[in-house]
Amino acid sequence: MLQPTNYFMHYSLHHIPERTQKPRQVGLTMVMDKGLSVRQVEDLLEVAGDYIDMVKLGWATSYVTANLKEKLAVYQSAGIPTYFGGTLFEAFIIRKQFADYQKLLDKYQMPYAEVSDGSIELPHEEKCKYINELSKQVIVLSEVGSKDAEKILAPYQWIELMQAELQAGAWKVIGEARESGTVGLFRDSGEVRQGLVKEIIHTIPSEKIIWEAPQKSQQVWFVKLLGANVNLGNIAPNEVISVETIRLGLRGDTFTHFLPKDLL
Amino acid sequence: MLQPTNYFMHYSLHHIPERTQKPRQVGLTMVMDKGLSVRQVEDLLEVAGDYIDMVKLGWATSYVTANLKEKLAVYQSAGIPTYFGGTLFEAFIIRKQFADYQKLLDKYQMPYAEVSDGSIELPHEEKCKYINELSKQVIVLSEVGSKDAEKILAPYQWIELMQAELQAGAWKVIGEARESGTVGLFRDSGEVRQGLVKEIIHTIPSEKIIWEAPQKSQQVWFVKLLGANVNLGNIAPNEVISVETIRLGLRGDTFTHFLPKDLL
Amino acid sequence: MLQPTNYFMHYSLHHIPERTQKPRQVGLTMVMDKGLSVRQVEDLLEVAGDYIDMVKLGWATSYVTANLKEKLAVYQSAGIPTYFGGTLFEAFIIRKQFADYQKLLDKYQMPYAEVSDGSIELPHEEKCKYINELSKQVIVLSEVGSKDAEKILAPYQWIELMQAELQAGAWKVIGEARESGTVGLFRDSGEVRQGLVKEIIHTIPSEKIIWEAPQKSQQVWFVKLLGANVNLGNIAPNEVISVETIRLGLRGDTFTHFLPKDLL
Repeated sequence: MLQPTNYFMHYSLHHIPERTQKPRQVGLTMVMDKGLSVRQVEDLLEVAGDYIDMVKLGWATSYVTANLKEKLAVYQSAGIPTYFGGTLFEAFIIRKQFADYQKLLDKYQMPYAEVSDGSIELPHEEKCKYINELSKQVIVLSEVGSKDAEKILAPYQWIELMQAELQAGAWKVIGEARESGTVGLFRDSGEVRQGLVKEIIHTIPSEKIIWEAPQKSQQVWFVKLLGANVNLGNIAPNEVISVETIRLGLRGDTFTHFLPKDLL
Repeated sequence: MLQPTNYFMHYSLHHIPERTQKPRQVGLTMVMDKGLSVRQVEDLLEVAGDYIDMVKLGWATSYVTANLKEKLAVYQSAGIPTYFGGTLFEAFIIRKQFADYQKLLDKYQMPYAEVSDGSIELPHEEKCKYINELSKQVIVLSEVGSKDAEKILAPYQWIELMQAELQAGAWKVIGEARESGTVGLFRDSGEVRQGLVKEIIHTIPSEKIIWEAPQKSQQVWFVKLLGANVNLGNIAPNEVISVETIRLGLRGDTFTHFLPKDLL
Repeated sequence: MLQPTNYFMHYSLHHIPERTQKPRQVGLTMVMDKGLSVRQVEDLLEVAGDYIDMVKLGWATSYVTANLKEKLAVYQSAGIPTYFGGTLFEAFIIRKQFADYQKLLDKYQMPYAEVSDGSIELPHEEKCKYINELSKQVIVLSEVGSKDAEKILAPYQWIELMQAELQAGAWKVIGEARESGTVGLFRDSGEVRQGLVKEIIHTIPSEKIIWEAPQKSQQVWFVKLLGANVNLGNIAPNEVISVETIRLGLRGDTFTHFLPKDLL
């Protein structure tokens, strides 16, 4: 665990937790792009490309961003998989346009797809059928949890849903938080539902879960609980560097977390 | 109403509310630029140019931004009207430099001007004279509401002020909210003064009003009340895409709002 | 005091407080770069370069930002001094790698260094030795105050620490606030500890202090208390223009602050 990493080696510090390297199966950082320009993507990759494992085009922003094709080309040439936000999947489903959605994935050669039901009512069996169907076409991420702050699932329900969706063919399951980090895994205030998370990982291997955690305090909490290589999602582009320092114990909040006792 | 739009047509979804097209008289999105670089403006236009109807150079930022002339040239060549924030108008007025302000509008060939009294005490008759005088030179937006959270106007006062300013020559009137969205139309918490807004639109045609609504919950509220083509202002550059998806029912918050009942 | 400045002179306004010019000893704006790209730095300098006196590479972000060398070259060619955040100093100290830290400053020809103890326990005598040692190599900024919201120092302690650190060789002392502005000088809510600040400046010359003040209300408070040329730190890149307008009485919050009484 506590070996120096050597990614950039501007300089060397002892006792830095080892990070997984690309292509990562764990230690994933999923970034939300809610309308970046081509140059902004290039800038992001210049600074933090090695720490970005996949990019979600937030909700249905891809419907209106004028530069969709050009932007996807930049991500693709950097070897970073992209996918449409789950809300877009839902927008097709509620309109009974699933076949159109499948064509869309082909048209843009999307390597991943997200299946969610955060804004629609979808019988779980049906959701799992979509997961299964899409998993024949792309790598599927499925999301559990509602965008509605009023709809609170009990831990055992989260677990049952996650298990069924993994079994249906999802590569990873995502714990919902929205862009804001105030629903699903979190309370209105952004505070983590700690009991819920601990209950989930008691049953589901944590490497199978991507935790949406847009707020710093949430990222810190997950790194402290699950280590440098926890999977984190809905990270804002300009927070990727911060998240990486939190993972490495190089921000105040996790500063002493990975250090051997004799240094404290 | 419920026709597919065809602006970019990356893909087609049914039951998307029809949006007005440029040059828009309603459905306006006014963006606040508080110090963008030339490249950042180009990036914004690449992604979201079709959804930006006018750009305000926030308060008196134009006094200190080094790239004013070059930046205005970019907006101009994209056909997007610009104007100086109302606080700059007030800065000239309180210093008894109105003639200088008029020259300034000429110097930079500003197509619009904002007349406001958010930070100064200005007898309303005098404000209307400025509106009238400037309306001979440029298109005038006039703003109602104080930047001071303590100064709360009754609804009938908002209405009287708005009516008089439209009569004096304002093209549209703007409801004040600041960059933060916590004064004027909104409470300290950012919550909409719903009764106030409903009272206003009972008398003033809502297409004559631009609602400053920098917070997402505020944008959602106005779209739900007044539809996809409500006029919204003080939108941050990196939120223009989000606002457009909210208008189209393509973000969770308005996801079902425009759908026919038989799909729900 | 109340003379027009002439930095850009897009236009002239009377009664604008005079600002110090570069290289400034007071009226400093210290900006926090937490992972900008080369182009983003260029953009920042295009818009606001004249108002940026020094740039901190926030905490240990420099460990992970891939473009460190190239970015430093841009700042250097613009004549803007840079330094590593204090947390990086602490990361070396807690690992007993002080000699490595000194080599690092040489390697990147860093003109400044920050000495802090916001995340580690460091006897004050030892901290002062580091300040003294580093002051032979670079210009030293030393920071007082913990990143831990629970650790609250009494005003007399702040004063004793600051005096000792200036005496040890610090060029300026920095009042801690974090990126968020919610510790040290400020309460959890971001509210200024007004009594603390007033107590400090009763004894320490305020030009020797850089106040970390990332939130607008904090910047406004300091400008109102200490004038246009107060030293402010931890300013986000996209807030430099706003801070400059606050200093000049050109934003609503300080709009009337510098005006002669007969205009009010």
